[in-house]
This record gives sequence, structure tokens and C-alpha cells, in this order.
Amino acid sequence: MSEQRLPFDPIAEARRHWEAHGWVDAAPGMAAVTSVMRAQQILLARIDDVLREVGLTFARYELLRLLGFSSAGSLPLMVIGSRLQVHPTSVTSVVDRLEEQGLVRRLPHATDRRVKLAELTDEGRRLVDDATARLNETVFQAPGLDPDDVELLIELLRRLRRDAGDF
Amino acid sequence: MSEQRLPFDPIAEARRHWEAHGWVDAAPGMAAVTSVMRAQQILLARIDDVLREVGLTFARYELLRLLGFSSAGSLPLMVIGSRLQVHPTSVTSVVDRLEEQGLVRRLPHATDRRVKLAELTDEGRRLVDDATARLNETVFQAPGLDPDDVELLIELLRRLRRDAGDF
Repeated sequence: MSEQRLPFDPIAEARRHWEAHGWVDAAPGMAAVTSVMRAQQILLARIDDVLREVGLTFARYELLRLLGFSSAGSLPLMVIGSRLQVHPTSVTSVVDRLEEQGLVRRLPHATDRRVKLAELTDEGRRLVDDATARLNETVFQAPGLDPDDVELLIELLRRLRRDAGDF
Repeated sequence: MSEQRLPFDPIAEARRHWEAHGWVDAAPGMAAVTSVMRAQQILLARIDDVLREVGLTFARYELLRLLGFSSAGSLPLMVIGSRLQVHPTSVTSVVDRLEEQGLVRRLPHATDRRVKLAELTDEGRRLVDDATARLNETVFQAPGLDPDDVELLIELLRRLRRDAGDF
């Protein structure tokens, strides 16, 4: 988080340095990329403040939320990785941690025992709904932009994600 | 990074779930925040791929770059934290690592010895220019959006950063 309010925009300042060094073609991209990095820090700090109160990280919350939306409350680990766009080893470590917390359990698929599922426990289901209500109220209903800007930001980043091959 | 291309946009899908659960006021903010998180992962992975080749992380690169832009090639640690908008303890650990790599050295301020400075070494100056050239060519000149969208993204995130009290 910012330790103090600067009297100028540090990213605009970096852009001026870029241009002054002759890196004119790269200056807008540098400013855009650095802006995304900083926005992520700001938003993640807000999310972490909320989720810390219920003993979750954002990665663990996202996994619980995905399971909560599934009709059975369970999904194969491979599907979880694909939907959350994270590496299988990350899924494993997040599920390990959630299992230790008693929020999910691992079980084999009913018809193909080679497929491992993660399933919400009752406590996991209760916690993810509590966490969602807190995040909605504290972060998602007030993301720091007016409604038109929110829609525009979603659309711009959708293009960036599509260009990167996400979907 | 994405392990596979999904046949649908997972954030649009999450937004539909949010709306179906009646969290209509929070759905756009959820989609915007999640989009920023995912865009950051995509961009940081690209940056890390480039910086790994020269033995840097983005945090270490940013600190070297800031010193490289300063007229003396050195800045007080407190100023570095304020400009990079990171906590003093993070500055300390990044400077520790850069000092181990021989890229910066710590020294006392010429007129106020209580003030600690970080200064680029010759090797640090050489490396930050090399790293910048690589990042410009590989990431910043091709950020994954067309030029108009890049400017719009910078402006939207400037509003978000200003709203968060960055400047």
C-alpha cells in the first residue's frame, strides 16, 4: 500500500523519463503495464484486508467460490486449474491448505477413480458465502471507478486476456 | 499462465453467476477487479520471462530503473519507498538482494549521515539499461492492446490509483 500520497503521478513521471530517453514506442505500454501492476497491488490489499478476517487468501477464496457455484459443490482438480487459469501445482497447494482448514475434502470421482475431486465441506460452503458477502460490500460494490469506467475497464482487459490466449 | 485456452471467458461466466445469485450491484466490480488480477498475472509472467534472463525480478528492476533515472544515480531509501509506493521493509529487502548481486551499494548521505542512500554500481547501471531494452522490445512495445486502448487503460487506472490516494 501507498505509504504517503505523492504530489505527482509516479507512472506519468516514469513515462516522461521513458520519452526523454527516446523510448517513445515503448512509453505507453510501460505506463499501461505499470498501471496494471499498481492497480493489482491496491485491489489485492483491499481484498486481503477483508479475507484475512475469515482466514482466507484470494487464491483460496477463488477456489472455494468456484466450487460453491458448481451444482455438486465439487469439481475435478484439473477442471479447477483450467477455470482459475492456474498451474496444477498451485491447485494442489491451495487444496492442501483448504483441506487443513476443513473447508474442502478430496475424494475420487464416482465413475473414474483416477480423477480426483475437491468438494466443499459444510463449513467451506458457509465460509465462502460469508466471504463473498464481505467482499461484495467492501470491495466489489465500490471498486474505485464510476459504473461506465468499470464496464470500459472490463472490456479493455477482456481484449488483453483474449489476446494472451486465455479464452 | 493459462494452461489451456478456455472455450468461454471465465470472468464473464463468474459475472453471470454473481448476477444469478442476486449480487447485481457487486457483479461489475467483481468482474473489473478479477480482470485486473488476471491481467497482472499475464503481464507479470511476460516480464518475469524477460527479467529472469538477466537475473532480476520486477521489484528489483523497478528499483534499479528509478536509481538510473536519478541525476546522481542514488536516492535515499525513504524516497525510493515513496516513489515505488512500497513499504520501507520491502525496500530494505530489495536493496539487500541488489547489494548481494553487486548492482547497488548503500552509502550515507553526504551532509546527513542518518540518511541512507542506495547507489547504482557500474554493473547495476549496465544491467538496468540492458533489462530496459529487453522489456521495451518484448513487453512494452507490444502490451496486447491497440494504441487507443492502451491510452484509455492508462487513464482508467490513473483514476483508480488517484481514488486510492496514490497521488
